[in-house]
Amino acid sequence: MALVVQKYGGTSLGNIEKIKVVANRVRETHQKGNGVIVVVSAMAGETDRLLSLAKDITAQPDEREQDVLASTGEQVSCALLTMALKSLSIKSISYVAHQVKIRTDNAFGKARILDVDSKRITRDLRDRKVVVIAGFQGIDDKGNITTLGRGGSDTSAVAIATAAKADICEIYTDVEGVFTTDPNICPEARKLNRISYDEMLEMASLGAKVLQTRSVEFAKKYQIPIHVRSTFSDRTGTIVTREDKDMESVIVSGVTYNKDEAKITVTKIPDRPGIASKLFTPISNANIIVDMIIQNVSADGFTDLTFTVPKADYKKALELVQITAKEINAKEVLADPSIAKVSIVGAGMRSHSGVASAMFTALANEGINIMMISTSEIKISCVIESKYTELAVRVLHNTFCLGENNDLKN
Amino acid sequence: MALVVQKYGGTSLGNIEKIKVVANRVRETHQKGNGVIVVVSAMAGETDRLLSLAKDITAQPDEREQDVLASTGEQVSCALLTMALKSLSIKSISYVAHQVKIRTDNAFGKARILDVDSKRITRDLRDRKVVVIAGFQGIDDKGNITTLGRGGSDTSAVAIATAAKADICEIYTDVEGVFTTDPNICPEARKLNRISYDEMLEMASLGAKVLQTRSVEFAKKYQIPIHVRSTFSDRTGTIVTREDKDMESVIVSGVTYNKDEAKITVTKIPDRPGIASKLFTPISNANIIVDMIIQNVSADGFTDLTFTVPKADYKKALELVQITAKEINAKEVLADPSIAKVSIVGAGMRSHSGVASAMFTALANEGINIMMISTSEIKISCVIESKYTELAVRVLHNTFCLGENNDLKN
Repeated sequence: MALVVQKYGGTSLGNIEKIKVVANRVRETHQKGNGVIVVVSAMAGETDRLLSLAKDITAQPDEREQDVLASTGEQVSCALLTMALKSLSIKSISYVAHQVKIRTDNAFGKARILDVDSKRITRDLRDRKVVVIAGFQGIDDKGNITTLGRGGSDTSAVAIATAAKADICEIYTDVEGVFTTDPNICPEARKLNRISYDEMLEMASLGAKVLQTRSVEFAKKYQIPIHVRSTFSDRTGTIVTREDKDMESVIVSGVTYNKDEAKITVTKIPDRPGIASKLFTPISNANIIVDMIIQNVSADGFTDLTFTVPKADYKKALELVQITAKEINAKEVLADPSIAKVSIVGAGMRSHSGVASAMFTALANEGINIMMISTSEIKISCVIESKYTELAVRVLHNTFCLGENNDLKN
Repeated sequence: MALVVQKYGGTSLGNIEKIKVVANRVRETHQKGNGVIVVVSAMAGETDRLLSLAKDITAQPDEREQDVLASTGEQVSCALLTMALKSLSIKSISYVAHQVKIRTDNAFGKARILDVDSKRITRDLRDRKVVVIAGFQGIDDKGNITTLGRGGSDTSAVAIATAAKADICEIYTDVEGVFTTDPNICPEARKLNRISYDEMLEMASLGAKVLQTRSVEFAKKYQIPIHVRSTFSDRTGTIVTREDKDMESVIVSGVTYNKDEAKITVTKIPDRPGIASKLFTPISNANIIVDMIIQNVSADGFTDLTFTVPKADYKKALELVQITAKEINAKEVLADPSIAKVSIVGAGMRSHSGVASAMFTALANEGINIMMISTSEIKISCVIESKYTELAVRVLHNTFCLGENNDLKN
């Protein structure tokens, strides 16, 4: 018999009927003799409803109070699911963050979990209780309520699985698992049976919205296997686990895209030490996250610098850069919000050559111009014109044989 | 400068605009140099919305989980009000029960406050912060979330005022104060300027829905003056305070009524010791609260027994009594749900005679039959036919000169 952590997202708990479906699902696992810990998100739409109340109060709601507000969403679904379990005669108990000491730092709205006290949980499991815990929330050292950011319940689930020494962390969602790419864009997209933590990390941070990035980092660190699967089907989903030999034989596991960034270029910057620092310090001070940064090789004492920022922060970033550009005597600032980033991800890239050139050729064959390139050990990203996004995704998916009949992994 | 506790009820926090009105009100008090602690209820309708979610899950929601659910209502309004205060540049911080250790027993849904830890509150007040605390909730010794029952935020406010050694506890509501009777029934009803704890207790438990009974008991025990007043007006309301000479000169302070009870009579009970216990034990086991109990003087070995129960529990109580009546060989069980209880309350009754007979005469003059009578030191209650309720209230109000031109108290 195993100890299973099951995390249910907002769409799985979207209304009372769905909560009852989840309760039945939990009961099945419990009745097989497994220990079960359930981590819940807020009911779909609830977090947005709460945050819009805050916005009605003031344009800039206090961050500490926003966490006090938003954390109620998970408390509600946690209580309702426990009631549903009890009405099915399953012994069960709910906990919010302070009751099982989900300790975090004090970065309101994007706190990081430090540790979870598993004493109470373990005792309840020994009594054959299903333990239901509110995800997304924690408390800092002063007892303030914190939240972990969008998708934070995934991280709660993995952290709790780690603390309770669970055998597996199941993430229930409204899709069947992790796909080779977005099925809405590419009908040939195929569910992956297995994927490594590193690949999942690249997929998650590149725009596949299945798992919060931090939850995968956590799972990798503590080697907790994650099973991403559908609440509404019994089929096996995708197992996220440590890399093994089989995985290396697959060169590319998935294609992702991200349309939420904009590009800013500063041209003819006098090439002196400290220029990059001058440019990026004001942006960082404004809490704007810069993603890709490309600096061309300096020629005749000048250099061009291009970077991407979230579209939401693009105008702000542009203003700041224009000020700095003037100060450092750059020639001009060019901006382009109509871009997309398409990426291929695969553990096999480590040991295979020619992947990048295959990608570039495939895009060139369709007349798609590449504006920026960045690479890591297991991914290659290209920035292209936004209008080519879907085409690029389909072409790359096909180029690397990711379609239905190409499941090499199982 | 004083330390003021202000409690705002659900109707005062009914929407975002009203929350902003409350924030301005709090600011005014704070800017005069007072220390301010605010205790909030859930936004109007929110507790009902939450409890109806629970009812949709199961007809008999688990009590512990119901408290986890319901307590989110106050957490939301507490965060929103604090945001509103901060947006007015008032230093402010919100707390829920576990953060200021509002310790209660573990009677879920109707917990009693044991004590409140004022350390954090006092430190914040020293920093000139407005401290906003979620009412209605507490935690038991095991850290479980509890709630105090309907109107519980009043009790939270008084308990917090006691712990923090506040000078006054202001209860803000949608009426101007405590009235001599219900103005909807009796247009001559007049706002009382002052009333004693004991009178208020009788008024509260007899159906005047201004304050939770327990909050008045608490205030009496710790001698905290309560000021009941309107959120939407600057006029002075009603001060609930210790009894003094002036109060004794007023014979009757108010007239109350309650239509939420039903009457059950068991006739010709063989008069043996233990009969009452046999009758009431099953009712008490079913958690039904019995209000008035009248047993006639026993004649020729038989006795009649009449009592009242809440209308909601009336059918259940009737079934239980019918079973017992058969066992103890009583003649029959009569039931009447169409009753009302009208009462007069006044500290002056202690030292004045003839009050009861004046009440009975006034009712008789209108042809109103009295079915049951019960008295305490400072109140007299009569059970009458429900249809005469409004008439009885007006007649008694007039008999004891409670109208607009009869303010003897100030």
